[in-house]
Order: sequence, then C-alpha cells, then structure tokens
Amino acid sequence: MFGEYALKSAPFVPQKKEFSTMSLGMYAASVPVYQRQLGAISKVLEKASAWAEAKKVDEAVLVGTRLIPDMLPLSRQVQIACRFAEESAARLAGVEIPKAPENAEKTLGELRARIAAVLDYIKVFTPAQIDGSEEREIALTVAGNPMTLTGARYLEHFAMAHFYFHCTMTYAILRQCGVEIGKRDFIGAL
Amino acid sequence: MFGEYALKSAPFVPQKKEFSTMSLGMYAASVPVYQRQLGAISKVLEKASAWAEAKKVDEAVLVGTRLIPDMLPLSRQVQIACRFAEESAARLAGVEIPKAPENAEKTLGELRARIAAVLDYIKVFTPAQIDGSEEREIALTVAGNPMTLTGARYLEHFAMAHFYFHCTMTYAILRQCGVEIGKRDFIGAL
Repeated sequence: MFGEYALKSAPFVPQKKEFSTMSLGMYAASVPVYQRQLGAISKVLEKASAWAEAKKVDEAVLVGTRLIPDMLPLSRQVQIACRFAEESAARLAGVEIPKAPENAEKTLGELRARIAAVLDYIKVFTPAQIDGSEEREIALTVAGNPMTLTGARYLEHFAMAHFYFHCTMTYAILRQCGVEIGKRDFIGAL
Repeated sequence: MFGEYALKSAPFVPQKKEFSTMSLGMYAASVPVYQRQLGAISKVLEKASAWAEAKKVDEAVLVGTRLIPDMLPLSRQVQIACRFAEESAARLAGVEIPKAPENAEKTLGELRARIAAVLDYIKVFTPAQIDGSEEREIALTVAGNPMTLTGARYLEHFAMAHFYFHCTMTYAILRQCGVEIGKRDFIGAL
C-alpha cells in the first residue's frame, strides 16, 4: 500500500511543514525554550512570595537582593531575562522590537506580570516566522561596539547564553536567601 | 553571468551539506555551544587562580565554596557542566556514554584540565553524527524515574538548561567571592 506511494515519481515540492517537524529549526530552539524557562521562573517567584509571607519578610527585600553589591538585584535579573526573550523573538522574526520597558516592577507579583506579558507576546510568533532565520543578519551594539551576527549564532551564542545567565541568577539569589527551591523548579515542566 | 546559472533547470538532489549549513541542526545547537561556553568557564577559572594567588587565598577555599551550605561547591558545578556536555554529545550521536568520572578534581588547575579533556572529547564529533538526532529516543532516569525524551527536547529543554545552570553557578560563586569577572567573561569569544 505504502510501497506504491513510494514508487510514485512525484515532482519535488519542498514541504515547509515536514521540514519544521524533522529538523530542530530556529523556532523550536527559541520560543518554546523561553516559554518553559520563563514559566518555571514565574513559579519560582511564586514560591518566593509564599516564603516571604511565611517568614514575614518584606518582598521588597527579595526584589532588591544581590549576590554581591556590584551585581544587579533580583528584579533586574528577571527583567533582563524577559527582555532577551522578547527581543530575540522579534529580531529573528524580523519584526519591530518591542519598546524597551522601564525598570518598573517593584514586587514579585509585578515581576510575574512582566513574565506573563512576555509569554503573551512570544506565543503569537509562528514557526513560519522564525524558522529559516539562521542566516538573517542581526545587528547589535555590544558594550558600545557594533556587531553583526547571523541569526543562528545570535540565538545560540548570544541571546540564549544571556537568557539562561539571568534566569539562573534569579534562582541563585532566591536559593541563597533560603527560599525552598530545587533544580526541578528551575527546569520546570518537561 | 549568475543569471544563466539560475536559469538552469537541474534535477533536485538533496544536498546534506547545504542542509546543514542552512538549518540550525542538532550539531550547531550542541557541540559549538559547549565549546564556547566551557572555553569561557576555563578562562574564568584561570582568572580565579590569578586572583587567589594575588590575594594569598588557598585555591581549595574557592573550589569548596558554595552559595549556601546545602548547594554544591564550585568543583561540582564545573564537573556537572562538563558531564552534561560530554554525555549529551554521546547520547545525541548514539555512541557509548563515557564512563562517569569520579569527583576527583581538587584544584582550579585540575578543573581546567577536566574541561580540556571534555573539549578534546567533543571536538571529535562531526555534524553528520549529531544532525538528524531530533527524533532519537533519549532514555533518562530523572530523580529515580525513567523518562524518554526526543533528541530535540532532550537537548533544548534538559541538557542545555542543566548545562547553563551549572556554568552560571560557577560564575556566580566566583563573582560573589570577589574574583574580577564580568558577563563578557561568561559569554566568551563570539
């Protein structure tokens, strides 16, 4: 039955859909990673809220905690992770980058709302918009210097590295504060 | 001149090599990421050595430092990052997983030698061995429970998340100790 199908000598027609299923692709390597990881971080922040309430700790203390005084506080770690997710999705899809948000979130609830807003923003992107962006030129300014990377290099060696860095710092700060979280909370739902 | 070339109606022949160049692929999303990131961590450890020498701090103190007593020390953070790199490369290529190393490294120099050994191990893998492993079944035991993931899911949502987690923790511990490193050191050579 299927042997017959295989013997048919049909003209070649690229099947975008099959291609996306079989190969990793730029979409699968970006948006779903941001979704799982930011979802996990949101739940980590929820646990931090419950911990603060139980310990009678002002949430503002957690939000302002740093690993060392000349590093960024928890709020900025979350905000920057969010920024890399939304900015890289936009850059890879070739759409306008969302306006850079202000450093506005002052509570864990507000940080979770910021994550929810980013998740709402990136869920609209389709594989068709982002797959195929491997060779797209991504122009950046890094530490004041212009830099151009291909889409694949930008995603795998820049955006993803920064994104995981700030997600892990968020976890590290809360874990050091004593919030009861484990690496399973960091990884989230597989 | 090139217009003539474009007008030629050649029969379609899939070009594996072009495919690998044009699409992200499992190789590009794994081995080169481990290479850049472990290379960066090795240089961070080198800076930590120089810092310890200048400050007359026993390197064993750095190697044993934890963010909080019930987290793993620096040595284990480096070792686990190394393990995820070598193990995932082997799993995706479908070759025997290297024997799990003992927790043997006691100095920053030994940790750098461990990284160098992993870099030697993974540089032998070719794109042909790892590309196409998106649907390969990866059988894991996570917290005592068996789990099977596709190669793509395993790489993007498990191995890479754990790998970056432990690389970032390595950086976090040393940064908190006072070693003069910045995020550029974490990212390494683009």
